[in-house]
Amino acid sequence: MSTPLSPPLANCALSVNALAAPLVQRLIDQADALGVQVQRDARGVTLIDAGIDVPGSVAAGRLIGEICLGGLGRVSQRCQPEGGWPDWLDVASAQPLLACLGSQYAGWSLAASKEETGGKKFFALGSGPVRALAGKEALFEELGYRDRASHSAGQGVLVLEVDRAPPPVVLDKVLRDSGLAPEGLTVILTPTRSLAGTTQVVARVLEVALHKTHALAQETGFDLAHLIDGAACAPLPAPTADSVQAMGRTNDAILYGGQVRLSVRGPVEAAHKLARRLPSATSADYGRPFAEVFQAAGFDFYKIDPMLFAPAEVWISHLDSGSTFHAGATDLGLLLRHWQQEA
Amino acid sequence: MSTPLSPPLANCALSVNALAAPLVQRLIDQADALGVQVQRDARGVTLIDAGIDVPGSVAAGRLIGEICLGGLGRVSQRCQPEGGWPDWLDVASAQPLLACLGSQYAGWSLAASKEETGGKKFFALGSGPVRALAGKEALFEELGYRDRASHSAGQGVLVLEVDRAPPPVVLDKVLRDSGLAPEGLTVILTPTRSLAGTTQVVARVLEVALHKTHALAQETGFDLAHLIDGAACAPLPAPTADSVQAMGRTNDAILYGGQVRLSVRGPVEAAHKLARRLPSATSADYGRPFAEVFQAAGFDFYKIDPMLFAPAEVWISHLDSGSTFHAGATDLGLLLRHWQQEA
Amino acid sequence: MSTPLSPPLANCALSVNALAAPLVQRLIDQADALGVQVQRDARGVTLIDAGIDVPGSVAAGRLIGEICLGGLGRVSQRCQPEGGWPDWLDVASAQPLLACLGSQYAGWSLAASKEETGGKKFFALGSGPVRALAGKEALFEELGYRDRASHSAGQGVLVLEVDRAPPPVVLDKVLRDSGLAPEGLTVILTPTRSLAGTTQVVARVLEVALHKTHALAQETGFDLAHLIDGAACAPLPAPTADSVQAMGRTNDAILYGGQVRLSVRGPVEAAHKLARRLPSATSADYGRPFAEVFQAAGFDFYKIDPMLFAPAEVWISHLDSGSTFHAGATDLGLLLRHWQQEA
Repeated sequence: MSTPLSPPLANCALSVNALAAPLVQRLIDQADALGVQVQRDARGVTLIDAGIDVPGSVAAGRLIGEICLGGLGRVSQRCQPEGGWPDWLDVASAQPLLACLGSQYAGWSLAASKEETGGKKFFALGSGPVRALAGKEALFEELGYRDRASHSAGQGVLVLEVDRAPPPVVLDKVLRDSGLAPEGLTVILTPTRSLAGTTQVVARVLEVALHKTHALAQETGFDLAHLIDGAACAPLPAPTADSVQAMGRTNDAILYGGQVRLSVRGPVEAAHKLARRLPSATSADYGRPFAEVFQAAGFDFYKIDPMLFAPAEVWISHLDSGSTFHAGATDLGLLLRHWQQEA
Repeated sequence: MSTPLSPPLANCALSVNALAAPLVQRLIDQADALGVQVQRDARGVTLIDAGIDVPGSVAAGRLIGEICLGGLGRVSQRCQPEGGWPDWLDVASAQPLLACLGSQYAGWSLAASKEETGGKKFFALGSGPVRALAGKEALFEELGYRDRASHSAGQGVLVLEVDRAPPPVVLDKVLRDSGLAPEGLTVILTPTRSLAGTTQVVARVLEVALHKTHALAQETGFDLAHLIDGAACAPLPAPTADSVQAMGRTNDAILYGGQVRLSVRGPVEAAHKLARRLPSATSADYGRPFAEVFQAAGFDFYKIDPMLFAPAEVWISHLDSGSTFHAGATDLGLLLRHWQQEA
Repeated sequence: MSTPLSPPLANCALSVNALAAPLVQRLIDQADALGVQVQRDARGVTLIDAGIDVPGSVAAGRLIGEICLGGLGRVSQRCQPEGGWPDWLDVASAQPLLACLGSQYAGWSLAASKEETGGKKFFALGSGPVRALAGKEALFEELGYRDRASHSAGQGVLVLEVDRAPPPVVLDKVLRDSGLAPEGLTVILTPTRSLAGTTQVVARVLEVALHKTHALAQETGFDLAHLIDGAACAPLPAPTADSVQAMGRTNDAILYGGQVRLSVRGPVEAAHKLARRLPSATSADYGRPFAEVFQAAGFDFYKIDPMLFAPAEVWISHLDSGSTFHAGATDLGLLLRHWQQEA
């Protein structure tokens, strides 16, 4: 097993919020063309609706995906019926660890009780660059990374997969924890049932691989500091108004259609083990649409095998030995049976 | 059947000419690199030759395709022998109705008699953003859209699929109808037999689907206002000096190789019917190269079944129900038999 | 056979160094994000390490590929398991002759003896835009092209596929021959064993086709002046620390996975002959991994059949006749057997 290294991003001077800021500005400047709506709340926080009261678009979702990646990744769309499905997303990053775990991962728990909101209770998992300003998750200590408002020119951006704007009490918490002034914070709202929401979730195909890589660290001996480059693709499903089905489809896109290549260093055995353990098929829950698995688990995420959350097929390229370890396979047939019907 | 809605673009504040202006400027700035030639006529109208006296290029054609889409779509090229043919175009738009019918569609009839030109008579179907300034087609009333020279900063761009520059009398008409000063008008000339011409026509694969969707409105009950997002691809053929063959190939690229996905709202039955009726194979003229069909029709477009002008394969994703209706199929074998030979 | 034309780029006013300068600036500005390191030597020459002491990245390699092409081509990456391998590069240029032979080709021999370096001897084949400022190769006379420091705003960029920085004596020679001041010269270092190095070499898939086209000119009668447009793709292998294997893989990516389409003018017979002769399979050395061929040749490049250096599959589109001549085929099975193993 590899000797544990120091926190992998301890010397990283990049600001994910500063790098994302021009992309946020583009989303604002092109709001009409992209089908999103920009508002400022009473305090001056910028709220971007990308699919609640407006149609949104795949292009908005791609841009939000790149914002989530802290400006350190590319999300592109191609229309190509590989395996029978027309729309695919490509994702690539030269800084996969920082882009995916340091920024894109939906790891910041943002909750408010009925008492706090004065209405319905609120819960969302915050994702995107502002997480690295707040640093409220244990993950940031492990990564050794923090962004600072002074590095990001006072700018920060949060992405929420929600159907309504967060209540003031949640925005208060985000401002407090991130150290941002209200006019420096942008919050992007993307319901899963929207085009932009579906797109930005499927754009997490590389992040899902990194998250499982992180979860497997003990078992495989693979150290995240040895991750050098990443590229991935996944089919882009149609959203649907049923929220369980919509969420299920974005998961299925990755579990049954996601393909990931990681370039790594470190011990070759760790790379080899990682490849064997990484694909979704290593989970006993593999083989059924995610919505069924979720229902069978009583709609409780924590009863689902965490090993299921993974791409279908992986290639781990070990740079020093030149070995590429391949494992897993896509099951596009399963996707097509659930995603389309002959007219 | 769906209740007819108000004109779908009645509240649209986007200016397709303003959005296209930076792309026009890029075509001018990179003229040498893209193989096009920029001139100003005596009055100050900018004329860009993209393939008459200069070689032009696929890259120029892609940029002209994005100009035609009013800056509201992306045209990209990939070299990939899917089905045996190496070059493909991808097209996507978050505003398919405005981009394709409000701007890209070649719907503005521009004619001049021998008497008017003092030489050969001239005929062309004008396409691109300037159509929305002129608003001479009934389609604009139906869409409820008009661009204004005051919105577009006095800029406008017209694309003509021609072998020679339009006569002054035609430019006079364009200036008069669009309300532009001569120095605000750019006219791009793309012969079908050129690389840029072939490219910008194949980049109409999404527009062809929308035009047929429009033609089918009564029959399917599908309202254009329910169109949310679109993506498409088609193989890019080689141009040829024979104008009927060149035009035939660009049509075949779409009829036998075009693949389109539309994301829609509204009644699910209308989406379903649209999918069934949209592919080119619904036409009795389907199955032969377009040049043959055209010849059999005595070179008279109006004798060809309009239902033939359509992509080969379609996916209509109905966003609320989550259903994707698939219909049609490509016939790349037909394309390869006519497009290439073994050396 | 075609009448020999005047040098094909005799009237070309484009400056490959000026066109590459904004891309070089982007590489410098995004150095941390791309995993490269920028330094200035004592004189003021900018040295960019893209994989010696730093990890580099595929994204850095793509950008370096576009720099090599003199800003006249696009290098993009897609993650798509066509034929079983996940990562592919697309390359396209509207000025293939100038971009590939006038700039990208590694044709400038830069050597220094032990005496000159005061240590180990140095040898590298310089590639990229600065070659056109120096004009030391016979090829430039044939092309009729020269860049001038006065056209390039005193900027120039050289790419070296090396494991260490060039000695001062080599930089002196480059400065002298190019007419650049030290602060105007940027040198990019990309070891073959690095991600960026592998990427920028595979991005030569179109250039390899052009180089063989040039070598075949006498035999086929195809004049380089008749080359109008080009597009290509190839799979992107994993680098490996063994330099012969690393170099072998980048060659195999092109020889067994490279696919090129050229659009040409001139006599149709020349285009037809070119297609027949261009693929790598026309060489007797075809069929084995390049590293084996190299070893069998006693590690002497000049003993290898030069006809082997070519893409696997080609399409030559003759624009006037509309004929596309197809020849060759990929052998992705050979690549997979040597590039990956099941985990």
